[in-house]
Amino acid sequence: MAWIETDESTGILRRTAEYRPRRNWRTWLIGQPLPTADAPHQTIGKLVGLAVFASDALSSTAYATQEILFILAAAGTGAFSYAFPLSLVIVGLLAIVTLSYEQIIHAYPNGGGAYIVARDNLGDLPAQIAGAALLTDYILTVAVSISSGVAQVTSAFPALFPHRVEIAVGLVLFMMVVNLRGVRESGTAFAIPSYFFIVMMFLTVGVGIGRYLAGTLGVVADPPPLEMVGELQAVSVFLILHAFSSGTTALTGVEAISNGITAFREPRSRNAGITLIWMSLILGTLFLGITFLAGPIGAIPSEHETVISQLARTVFGGRNALYLAVIGATMIILIMAANTSFNGFPRLSALLGLDGFLPRQLAFRGSRLVYSYGIVALALVASLLIVLFRASVTGLIPLYAIGVFLSFTLAQAGMAHRWWKMGHLAAGQVKKERGSDLRFERGWQIKMIVNGFGAACTTVVTFIFAITKFASGAWIVLILIPVLVFVFSGIHRHYRHLAKRLSLEDYAEPPAIVRHRVILLIGGVHKGTLAALRYARALSRDVTAVHVSIDPAETERIQQRWDWWGKGTRLVILESPYRLMIEPVVKYIEEIAAQRQLNEVITVVVPQFVPKRWWANALHAQTATWLRFALLGQPGIVVTDVPYLVE
Amino acid sequence: MAWIETDESTGILRRTAEYRPRRNWRTWLIGQPLPTADAPHQTIGKLVGLAVFASDALSSTAYATQEILFILAAAGTGAFSYAFPLSLVIVGLLAIVTLSYEQIIHAYPNGGGAYIVARDNLGDLPAQIAGAALLTDYILTVAVSISSGVAQVTSAFPALFPHRVEIAVGLVLFMMVVNLRGVRESGTAFAIPSYFFIVMMFLTVGVGIGRYLAGTLGVVADPPPLEMVGELQAVSVFLILHAFSSGTTALTGVEAISNGITAFREPRSRNAGITLIWMSLILGTLFLGITFLAGPIGAIPSEHETVISQLARTVFGGRNALYLAVIGATMIILIMAANTSFNGFPRLSALLGLDGFLPRQLAFRGSRLVYSYGIVALALVASLLIVLFRASVTGLIPLYAIGVFLSFTLAQAGMAHRWWKMGHLAAGQVKKERGSDLRFERGWQIKMIVNGFGAACTTVVTFIFAITKFASGAWIVLILIPVLVFVFSGIHRHYRHLAKRLSLEDYAEPPAIVRHRVILLIGGVHKGTLAALRYARALSRDVTAVHVSIDPAETERIQQRWDWWGKGTRLVILESPYRLMIEPVVKYIEEIAAQRQLNEVITVVVPQFVPKRWWANALHAQTATWLRFALLGQPGIVVTDVPYLVE
Repeated sequence: MAWIETDESTGILRRTAEYRPRRNWRTWLIGQPLPTADAPHQTIGKLVGLAVFASDALSSTAYATQEILFILAAAGTGAFSYAFPLSLVIVGLLAIVTLSYEQIIHAYPNGGGAYIVARDNLGDLPAQIAGAALLTDYILTVAVSISSGVAQVTSAFPALFPHRVEIAVGLVLFMMVVNLRGVRESGTAFAIPSYFFIVMMFLTVGVGIGRYLAGTLGVVADPPPLEMVGELQAVSVFLILHAFSSGTTALTGVEAISNGITAFREPRSRNAGITLIWMSLILGTLFLGITFLAGPIGAIPSEHETVISQLARTVFGGRNALYLAVIGATMIILIMAANTSFNGFPRLSALLGLDGFLPRQLAFRGSRLVYSYGIVALALVASLLIVLFRASVTGLIPLYAIGVFLSFTLAQAGMAHRWWKMGHLAAGQVKKERGSDLRFERGWQIKMIVNGFGAACTTVVTFIFAITKFASGAWIVLILIPVLVFVFSGIHRHYRHLAKRLSLEDYAEPPAIVRHRVILLIGGVHKGTLAALRYARALSRDVTAVHVSIDPAETERIQQRWDWWGKGTRLVILESPYRLMIEPVVKYIEEIAAQRQLNEVITVVVPQFVPKRWWANALHAQTATWLRFALLGQPGIVVTDVPYLVE
Repeated sequence: MAWIETDESTGILRRTAEYRPRRNWRTWLIGQPLPTADAPHQTIGKLVGLAVFASDALSSTAYATQEILFILAAAGTGAFSYAFPLSLVIVGLLAIVTLSYEQIIHAYPNGGGAYIVARDNLGDLPAQIAGAALLTDYILTVAVSISSGVAQVTSAFPALFPHRVEIAVGLVLFMMVVNLRGVRESGTAFAIPSYFFIVMMFLTVGVGIGRYLAGTLGVVADPPPLEMVGELQAVSVFLILHAFSSGTTALTGVEAISNGITAFREPRSRNAGITLIWMSLILGTLFLGITFLAGPIGAIPSEHETVISQLARTVFGGRNALYLAVIGATMIILIMAANTSFNGFPRLSALLGLDGFLPRQLAFRGSRLVYSYGIVALALVASLLIVLFRASVTGLIPLYAIGVFLSFTLAQAGMAHRWWKMGHLAAGQVKKERGSDLRFERGWQIKMIVNGFGAACTTVVTFIFAITKFASGAWIVLILIPVLVFVFSGIHRHYRHLAKRLSLEDYAEPPAIVRHRVILLIGGVHKGTLAALRYARALSRDVTAVHVSIDPAETERIQQRWDWWGKGTRLVILESPYRLMIEPVVKYIEEIAAQRQLNEVITVVVPQFVPKRWWANALHAQTATWLRFALLGQPGIVVTDVPYLVE
């Protein structure tokens, strides 16, 4: 035991707790607790960084094409020819967003997601909206990625299709445990599957293009049936915009690097920026390639077989090893994409917790130095979504991406405003903000235009998204985000109010307590009661025993025994004609409290029976617990249980 | 306010609590609370007594015949001719049981159900078995009677058939509320429907016999289809015994009068005895009449239309006013039969609670002077049964009546033993038992033989019942009763053990507390902490503040502020490298407790934040609550929360 006296005059002692956490089922599941000093400080380079942060963005190539086709299918397979032109527009949008985020990365070298950028540049409400949008999308990323990953597996092994919900929820819970253990972005472990996916996808697209040019590509053998809902529609502007907004899910995950800049090696902004550009290039190429090839092979969007699966078995000529490698790689990248959320969600909710918008416990690092509460919350809500939507990617997609684009918009609008603020600073002047420092910068106008244009584009997409997907599910998110913002504000008000009320500024301390009245509640006279009486008499000389009388015979007995055992302590018997236990006591205490002085305190001592076995609690009336509840609202009254254990 | 000093020397004060219970949703539902002094003391005569206590017994005529036919149907409609001879045997059994209970009524003028008779004459285990059997059967009476009552309604209005479970559960909950309000056996209110039922049934049977003799009775028009399960069987001894045991449900409820003798006017044993005989006569006559008539009219047992319904519409020539009156009367008597359980179950469970076999709270009279816990428990379990068995009388019947016959057997065996004990007393000698006094009585041998023969008969029936109904559901009861007895014993052991441990016999009091160490837990320095410090200093001069350090910066700040605000109180900082809050404190307190003297007590003072709104509790870590749990097992340590309220 290490006692180190730090200050003689005030008597402050410091000691390191020797307590080593016990082994139990939790340590078995998530590992031995780690001391705070073990927090990791490793950084990563561009090559590993791409693998770590790109999984979310790249994984969307696994479903974006298919989701475009699903919408176009309403106008028949002929409408599938619109898919490729749409993908060109989406890749254009990707270029704009990438350029915009490139600037965010350089402006916020300490990491700046949409929440921080909006908070520092747009104010509390936009920050809360960005926070709500991001939290929603982190949850949906898990639900969508895992559902899509499971869909890849059930494409290869259709027998598993009826069990897809259980498999998906199982995967989410597995990821929860892994993340509670604290597998951080550990580099190499992530690099292998990511690059495996990239290689396999380029191989598929490359071979596919080659065979297409050689004219040997052919069409999907035995394609899944086209599931039509309702009558055949004509191709309309609405339908095209609807398909476009489904395709924009390809852009989800682009913001991941901007949240994790601190993980990069120095010069980190530069490294992160280059990684972002590489990521966008790969993403754009694969998305275009897959969407292009889906046309000639006649891929059919289906819940039962993914477009990736149809493409791979057409390109490689059947369900062979190469096909299985593609499916496997796709499944793994989708699960890793979900893992990105398990990093992002707890961090963002901890940030919101520290800023007082969410419960502060979210900022508490668990036994493995991760934000455990956030990880568990994410897993539970995502699992609930998967169950509600029966693990259907197409069912979840309308909810997805609207939050992403809302946060894109807020981040870029915030950046535009930031450039404007910087443009109006004097040269050399530095303005400190919470997330970054502001300095005058040349060419701020152009940068402002880049971010402003990006914001304008994503605003338009957000609206297209909200309108075209409203009926099929976007309304849920459009209600959820304001509700979340409302909750954030409520929590924020609570913490602010509390801090003000507890503040010691201008605090005039009341006089010390000189009178201590003790009220001892007795239900009988036995060893437990006498132990409580001994305790009560140690607190003060002014002890009053109180008994609530329901049964006159019992009361008579208690009176006689109190004569003998009560050490002359005053006994008040409260007749309770309505057989109530708590209310007469509360009433009596309230009366006494009403006559109290400022320097007087009332302690209610309640003997509480503590059984050896938990079920025995059901055999006792739990008066102490109820009384505590009833008196909690009374200022200056302290309820003390004196436990008596029966071994 | 009325203060009445009763004893000058010991200072015992008595006061009547002025507290009048508040109006809320509960008083709206079940009425204003009644003072204990209002407990009713009315008694009833034979005519009303028959109406009050006969509903349970008489109501079984509504289903007993049908249940015999259900079993016989397995051998085809030809086997229905066995029904009437079987009913003659059952009425013979009824005569024996009635004679036996006649003697119980005279022996236990203060009320003696099977539980009391078994307890006083056979010992603890038979008493517990009788208690378990009776409780089970009270629950089943509710489930069966209500299900059968609903079946009458759906016979008349087949459109309601799909909603029978909801209607049945709704009725049970309605009866729960009515009984929580405390509608006791209030005489006239019960007399009208009971006599209405008796009149309607005699009318039906009488007209039926008349038309049968006149040869104009005819057969059931458009009878329900015979639902056959499995292949046609031959008539076997097993089948006959099976049908017999189904028919013995006619005897359920015969014991009701013996439980409620105290409700009768003096000479109460005589009045109750005469009422019992009248009840048995009516029951036997109706049961025989209905079973006889079911043959010639060709009644078919069915879940969709009861035999009573078929009989009534055949006798009265269609679904006319007389038919509806019979159905209505039957439904009402069945619901009133369920009400008998709502009187019996709570009383018996209160009795078991007082004897320490069930939680003592069951003996607590609620705001309306009824045993509220028992009423609610009965309603919940019965509703669960109705839902599980989809309100099917035929599904529930195999569970029913086995408990009744078990308790018949125990009651009569107990009585036989009681006569034997009385026969061996000297003349004029009085032996006091808990439920009655024993005196020598002439002719005890014959009385013993009557009860002994009754016990033998019901033993045989119990076995027949258990064997023939085992597979179709009786096994549930045969498992449940031992489980209940096991639970009773566990609870009994707990209370006995507790009483011994708390007993003040040979109790040498430990020395008074002279040293009081106070440990004040602080998580920050604010108004709440300082209020707790003021309280701690009022308890003792020996105060140590303890802070668990997780964040060094925060700890530094607390140290500085403690220097200023801590009034020189010693501060111990517990470093918690694993970021645990509770464990280091517990460890520290355990160390201090280990060095404690006998006359020393440790109080842990925890400032506890009490928010204005309940949801705000989720925003705080609830350290006080967790610490209380962690320290509950430590003898001699008291945890005190000092609440600080933020308005």
